[in-house]
Amino acid sequence: MTFAARLEQRVRSTDSCLCLGLDPRPDALPADLRPTTAADSPESWAEAYRRWGEEVLDLASDRVPAVKPQVAFFEILGPPGMAAYVALCRAARERGLTVIADVKRGDIGSTAAAYAEAWLGRPGGQRVADACTVAPYFGSDGLRPFLEVALREEAGFFVLVRTSNPSARELQSLETPEGPLFAAVAALLRQLQPAGAGYGPIGAVAGATWPEELERLRGGLPRAWLLVPGYGAQGGGAADVAGAFDRQGLGALVAASRSLTQPWGAQNPVPEDWRERVRVAIEQANADLNAVRPPRSTAG
Amino acid sequence: MTFAARLEQRVRSTDSCLCLGLDPRPDALPADLRPTTAADSPESWAEAYRRWGEEVLDLASDRVPAVKPQVAFFEILGPPGMAAYVALCRAARERGLTVIADVKRGDIGSTAAAYAEAWLGRPGGQRVADACTVAPYFGSDGLRPFLEVALREEAGFFVLVRTSNPSARELQSLETPEGPLFAAVAALLRQLQPAGAGYGPIGAVAGATWPEELERLRGGLPRAWLLVPGYGAQGGGAADVAGAFDRQGLGALVAASRSLTQPWGAQNPVPEDWRERVRVAIEQANADLNAVRPPRSTAG
Repeated sequence: MTFAARLEQRVRSTDSCLCLGLDPRPDALPADLRPTTAADSPESWAEAYRRWGEEVLDLASDRVPAVKPQVAFFEILGPPGMAAYVALCRAARERGLTVIADVKRGDIGSTAAAYAEAWLGRPGGQRVADACTVAPYFGSDGLRPFLEVALREEAGFFVLVRTSNPSARELQSLETPEGPLFAAVAALLRQLQPAGAGYGPIGAVAGATWPEELERLRGGLPRAWLLVPGYGAQGGGAADVAGAFDRQGLGALVAASRSLTQPWGAQNPVPEDWRERVRVAIEQANADLNAVRPPRSTAG
Repeated sequence: MTFAARLEQRVRSTDSCLCLGLDPRPDALPADLRPTTAADSPESWAEAYRRWGEEVLDLASDRVPAVKPQVAFFEILGPPGMAAYVALCRAARERGLTVIADVKRGDIGSTAAAYAEAWLGRPGGQRVADACTVAPYFGSDGLRPFLEVALREEAGFFVLVRTSNPSARELQSLETPEGPLFAAVAALLRQLQPAGAGYGPIGAVAGATWPEELERLRGGLPRAWLLVPGYGAQGGGAADVAGAFDRQGLGALVAASRSLTQPWGAQNPVPEDWRERVRVAIEQANADLNAVRPPRSTAG
């Protein structure tokens, strides 16, 4: 089954469009999962991040279709961090979750092919993720190697089109003969998307913080799943993402990290009942988003 | 000493502007360094890549100022690959080489800060690289975290401005009110470059395959070291990179990988005398490039 079909099935079966971001930071971890001062090493933190991640996966796996572990917080720990990252991604897949490796890789030729194999292929004989995020600056030379591996493995990838951060407009909103730059990137994706019916393997990252552009991208990329960061901690609300869905209430995954995994506020200590608080935050976000999502037909 | 000052010192002391790319692929390795069929595992390949890399470093360390290990070829091997990558980078630094981690990372906020700490900071207490490559699509939010760590650590980073691949023009040449997109990226770098005299911590990647644009970027970014891929296997010649240097013959590192580490052609078997062939290829490239580089003054 293709990536897009698997994702649709998961969105339907969980009745959720949430993609839970796993961004471990020292302040996100409850005291009993943190390494002791005596054991303060990259290895101990990597193991702590993995254990924390698996606990969050247990809270999330029946409630959301997808997770998005952020590789940078593991990469900072060096090789033991990467081992923990791969272990956490595989633990999420074992729980039936769709895993989007948030790696934002990008290069050309055989280098891009190596990244694509690393994140969409079977390094060491086993898949790590169902999809990954990819940066677009190289143009189609940088995207085709990801497409080749995605087609072979029935995987997917999400290309950065309109990011959620304030300075996104510095480059992405520059006017070009094809409209603003992000629209030119969208046009490139549309050209590369393999022909067919329904959603294809190439998705787009489009931030909740730019609701008009998000709605415009939904219309312009009718066959691309959208991955929508910026809901929650970055200030986007449910109304801001409403335009990201298709008429079936599908086609968009809304990503949130800190607002779900640290709903008590990252500046505050982790409360005793953190598991319950995370579970409630996920359920509230689902209710919040489902209220603006067009009703799902029961047909598959 | 700042990154730019260290790099200038290395370029002067080796009388070379080459940045040797380390892109290990199975076909690049001589038979005696390859894992046996019985030992065909990510661990064995990672160890083989590290050993091959160290042998190449021994051939290069007196002949070039800088090396650029490509992380994708290690990342494809999973966590053991990342351990080999970090070990190889550190081995290069121990030999006095300037190490540019070719990772093309990019994200925003605390995520970008984690990448910056991973590649420019001291993960596990020890530097991995002197500089890294960074993708620009997020705008200044994605670059400032790298600048903060670079200033603290006297490190540097090279932002993708004009890449060497054929499809670079699809996005990078789109006309905007600030000129082609790559010129708008260059303008962003110029704004972010900390005030001061001489070269700063923010460099730019500008391909040898676009000589006119390379010369234009030299003029427009007088305080940015340029990292110039595309010389050699990708078709750029010494004349194409001549415009990248300042009047002192400094300010540009010319990157080459396969043309130096597989001068016999990647489609051919690795010859018995591969070490001699690599050494000669490096010396020829140095002579070729020094012939077009303005003469270096003896003043520091």
